[in-house]
Amino acid sequence: MDNSNPGKDISLEDIKSKFPLASKKNDNHFSEFSVAGVQFGPNKCPIFAGPNMVESEELIKDVAINIKKRGASFLRGGAFKPLTFPYRSEKYNETRERGIEWMQLASSYADIPIITEIMEERYIPLVSQASDILQIGTRNMQNYPLLTACAKTKKPIMLKRGFGCSLRDWLGAAEYILVEGNERVILCERGIVAPHTHRSSSRFLLDLQVVPAAQEVTHLPIVTDPSHACFWRPWVPSLAKACVAVGSNGLMMEVHPKPKEAAVDPLQAIDYETFGSLVIQLKEIGKACNIDVGN
Amino acid sequence: MDNSNPGKDISLEDIKSKFPLASKKNDNHFSEFSVAGVQFGPNKCPIFAGPNMVESEELIKDVAINIKKRGASFLRGGAFKPLTFPYRSEKYNETRERGIEWMQLASSYADIPIITEIMEERYIPLVSQASDILQIGTRNMQNYPLLTACAKTKKPIMLKRGFGCSLRDWLGAAEYILVEGNERVILCERGIVAPHTHRSSSRFLLDLQVVPAAQEVTHLPIVTDPSHACFWRPWVPSLAKACVAVGSNGLMMEVHPKPKEAAVDPLQAIDYETFGSLVIQLKEIGKACNIDVGN
Amino acid sequence: MDNSNPGKDISLEDIKSKFPLASKKNDNHFSEFSVAGVQFGPNKCPIFAGPNMVESEELIKDVAINIKKRGASFLRGGAFKPLTFPYRSEKYNETRERGIEWMQLASSYADIPIITEIMEERYIPLVSQASDILQIGTRNMQNYPLLTACAKTKKPIMLKRGFGCSLRDWLGAAEYILVEGNERVILCERGIVAPHTHRSSSRFLLDLQVVPAAQEVTHLPIVTDPSHACFWRPWVPSLAKACVAVGSNGLMMEVHPKPKEAAVDPLQAIDYETFGSLVIQLKEIGKACNIDVGN
Amino acid sequence: MDNSNPGKDISLEDIKSKFPLASKKNDNHFSEFSVAGVQFGPNKCPIFAGPNMVESEELIKDVAINIKKRGASFLRGGAFKPLTFPYRSEKYNETRERGIEWMQLASSYADIPIITEIMEERYIPLVSQASDILQIGTRNMQNYPLLTACAKTKKPIMLKRGFGCSLRDWLGAAEYILVEGNERVILCERGIVAPHTHRSSSRFLLDLQVVPAAQEVTHLPIVTDPSHACFWRPWVPSLAKACVAVGSNGLMMEVHPKPKEAAVDPLQAIDYETFGSLVIQLKEIGKACNIDVGN
Repeated sequence: MDNSNPGKDISLEDIKSKFPLASKKNDNHFSEFSVAGVQFGPNKCPIFAGPNMVESEELIKDVAINIKKRGASFLRGGAFKPLTFPYRSEKYNETRERGIEWMQLASSYADIPIITEIMEERYIPLVSQASDILQIGTRNMQNYPLLTACAKTKKPIMLKRGFGCSLRDWLGAAEYILVEGNERVILCERGIVAPHTHRSSSRFLLDLQVVPAAQEVTHLPIVTDPSHACFWRPWVPSLAKACVAVGSNGLMMEVHPKPKEAAVDPLQAIDYETFGSLVIQLKEIGKACNIDVGN
Repeated sequence: MDNSNPGKDISLEDIKSKFPLASKKNDNHFSEFSVAGVQFGPNKCPIFAGPNMVESEELIKDVAINIKKRGASFLRGGAFKPLTFPYRSEKYNETRERGIEWMQLASSYADIPIITEIMEERYIPLVSQASDILQIGTRNMQNYPLLTACAKTKKPIMLKRGFGCSLRDWLGAAEYILVEGNERVILCERGIVAPHTHRSSSRFLLDLQVVPAAQEVTHLPIVTDPSHACFWRPWVPSLAKACVAVGSNGLMMEVHPKPKEAAVDPLQAIDYETFGSLVIQLKEIGKACNIDVGN
Repeated sequence: MDNSNPGKDISLEDIKSKFPLASKKNDNHFSEFSVAGVQFGPNKCPIFAGPNMVESEELIKDVAINIKKRGASFLRGGAFKPLTFPYRSEKYNETRERGIEWMQLASSYADIPIITEIMEERYIPLVSQASDILQIGTRNMQNYPLLTACAKTKKPIMLKRGFGCSLRDWLGAAEYILVEGNERVILCERGIVAPHTHRSSSRFLLDLQVVPAAQEVTHLPIVTDPSHACFWRPWVPSLAKACVAVGSNGLMMEVHPKPKEAAVDPLQAIDYETFGSLVIQLKEIGKACNIDVGN
Repeated sequence: MDNSNPGKDISLEDIKSKFPLASKKNDNHFSEFSVAGVQFGPNKCPIFAGPNMVESEELIKDVAINIKKRGASFLRGGAFKPLTFPYRSEKYNETRERGIEWMQLASSYADIPIITEIMEERYIPLVSQASDILQIGTRNMQNYPLLTACAKTKKPIMLKRGFGCSLRDWLGAAEYILVEGNERVILCERGIVAPHTHRSSSRFLLDLQVVPAAQEVTHLPIVTDPSHACFWRPWVPSLAKACVAVGSNGLMMEVHPKPKEAAVDPLQAIDYETFGSLVIQLKEIGKACNIDVGN
């Protein structure tokens, strides 16, 4: 029985007894695997880019082409999205299933693999046949039945950290996936609740300390997402550079052709040009750190 | 489309536009309803008591009788439980469905209504026919498909606050239930993540400020749970008194005949005697505050 | 040498080795002492009331008379105040020394002892001859030279908790006073930084869990201040009731004849009438909890 | 009068009205100044390195020589130190004034400027004649009389962020120095209190989001200190790389010849070799980001 203490920090006894599959076997143990030809593992930092919401076929194809040629490894985009309130726009209601289809079309069109969120068991067949990686969002990190059902598809899974969750909670959730025999689990830090976030428009605080902390105890790759963390476009490039330099095993960013007109989260996406020049710099930082950044 | 900011505090515009059903229509608007003969609403503070886990038929019957005669309004107990790690004890695995049955037997035996957690859609028929209130746990507060599915049963629902969630996130989740036409929604504060919790064995910090904050903007009753918040038996009586005095619309506490031998969370449950003398004091505090406490 | 870990929770080894004077000698060890005829100790809850700022002689005299007759034990009021920014109003600049004088006049006039903040060593002679208790504000909790200098006056000291400080940090600061042979130390919880405070106008989160946590390890009385914590008038009465019920050894509240016209913090003070009817209720709650509330 | 809300985020009105001297006049406004020949400003990242405590003349001279030749710009070391508890080791008591003297000797010996903490007004003459920069520690960030007294010396001042303080609180404190006509103010982020720090031995969470946040509103240089933030040696190199990449205007790290034998904080210092190879990498990252790192 689990008498464990979810709000607390990790101790060594925990690591061995509570997450045998997620924990490292030795200091140099890091998972290496490939997804749609993209390598994950130490010294790799693939880039996930795209809009918050898959607004239309045209938009997502345009983004796919433009991020691919600027260095992105994966196209990201939300078709099914958990919304804080139950009232959805018309646009959202008409997107969902079609959004998945548009993502697939964009994937073929630009020859780039895709990642999208899954938030309900009943959509697993649809999403898992379409998406190269299944993304579990921050609100569902501890939705264990969903984790188990997704794990059984054997598709790679990106597990976003719950915004109030500890590293220990997070690894516990990863263990739910690993125990089903699904070994391609990718962690993603996307900002946490904290006393101060520095702007009233900022939701969360990017926690980069969790990157070396995770890499000390788990072999799973850990991706960082500065866009959702800071929720403020002008800060994204600086934070993205820090994400690479700290040793992230992947980087996720929101990119939109006209960020201010984005259907969701218009304050946080960066445009193609900013993305392009940023990736050039990220690759140089990667070189300094012995990390391959982007495609 | 929801461009809202889940990590942030509530403003008045939010209240009106984002949660039309959860928000108060005027200052004196508070929901009043009855569940299995127990009244919820202003000036009512029913007590929910019982063990963390429904360990056996004998145990749960013994608890039911003993808390009822000491003033409890509802028997609480976990049959299906979300565990931070996927490894379950034998005891847990053999409990689940049988735990629900034992709860029902205890309910009839002691003539006391029951509340238990539901964490998977597929168990909704089983749990909703057995339990007087469906409890949504802290990890599932933003599992919107589960909320919607539970809402459709028309059973009363207790929605525990996510340990990293704002009042705004919480009311958004409540709105998902209300929008299905299910009006008997009960909020439950059970402790939040915070920089300091005062003991390394304490998980969370009890947030009593959220009680007047919630009562200012929503008509829904708000229950408080000091046991899960502080996770430390010696503090529970003091905090329970504060919960009543602050104006909680219900109080939930873990009670076990032999707390140190409890299968789960042995540090936090109080015994019958402590519960009994505490309830006497809580009723007196309630009298001073014009609140009916317990049965 | 102190290799201690200021951000962390308390363990038993800490208690004995790090704060020998602040720690309890046994479970029932609680300090009892008197200040200007007011008793501090278990089962006592004196009330400290008054405006944020000592605006004028007339105001403070009026407050003194009005709170005394409604049950306050001490008149509180700020003459010297730490301001987040260096730009002070004319009113503030002309108050300071005169504010202390006005407090003394009000004390004699209404026959009520006073407490006011000291924030600079050079004002210790002035403030310590005038005030019955020296208050150390939240920003100065770890200003150790100031603590030591105040301790040497042998005046009773109220040590407000730093808004980011742990119980351990706080007891460490108290130990700086105790080690000078000054035994009349009163702790005061006044709200902490936390991820969510529920209103954009709320500064801090009232931490009532720290009351039983402190009483478990230290013999020092602990006062609570709901006004500064929540910074929102409508929540103060509910929180004040919780402060008494949780077992606070004193209660501090801002009271002003016309709260909305208060020179500082006009959102948080309550008026005479609210204070008067609240104290009546607090005394009844105290009775239920075996605590003497107010004068 | 300051009715401001210290726990809250920054708004644009605040910037203009509350910190006229700390705020930027336009988007490209960044202070540039020199301290002992070291340049501060955009695209500069001097390195501050040295032990937590100035343990002996031999130690500090050895550190000075070794960090200088590996790229450090300043020697840091604590002579006067705020300790959480009043009980000091013999070593500490005999160090204080002599520590300042040893720092000066090491400075001359290795030809490197120094920075050390000042925590009491009475030591200002001693410390300000010796140290090239006066450091205000996290606990004293809001000790306004100390800030004012240090400001009057016209020595450059490094203002460490209070571990519970917002950016707004911090800039308010900087304004206290600037208003005295002292323009060489350096901010230093050193970790904040947060719900999760990932190890029970970690004190704080490094907040790198505050770097772009600060650079958006203030012209003052902002230094980051990963050692005190994470308190765990193995994480320091990763975090230091992120500190440079995010655009810090300086980097502070604890370096000790034999970290495990350090008199204070033996878990966090790195050794000469680690420091040396880290600086090489930091310089390359700096090149990628157009930032001059180290001397």
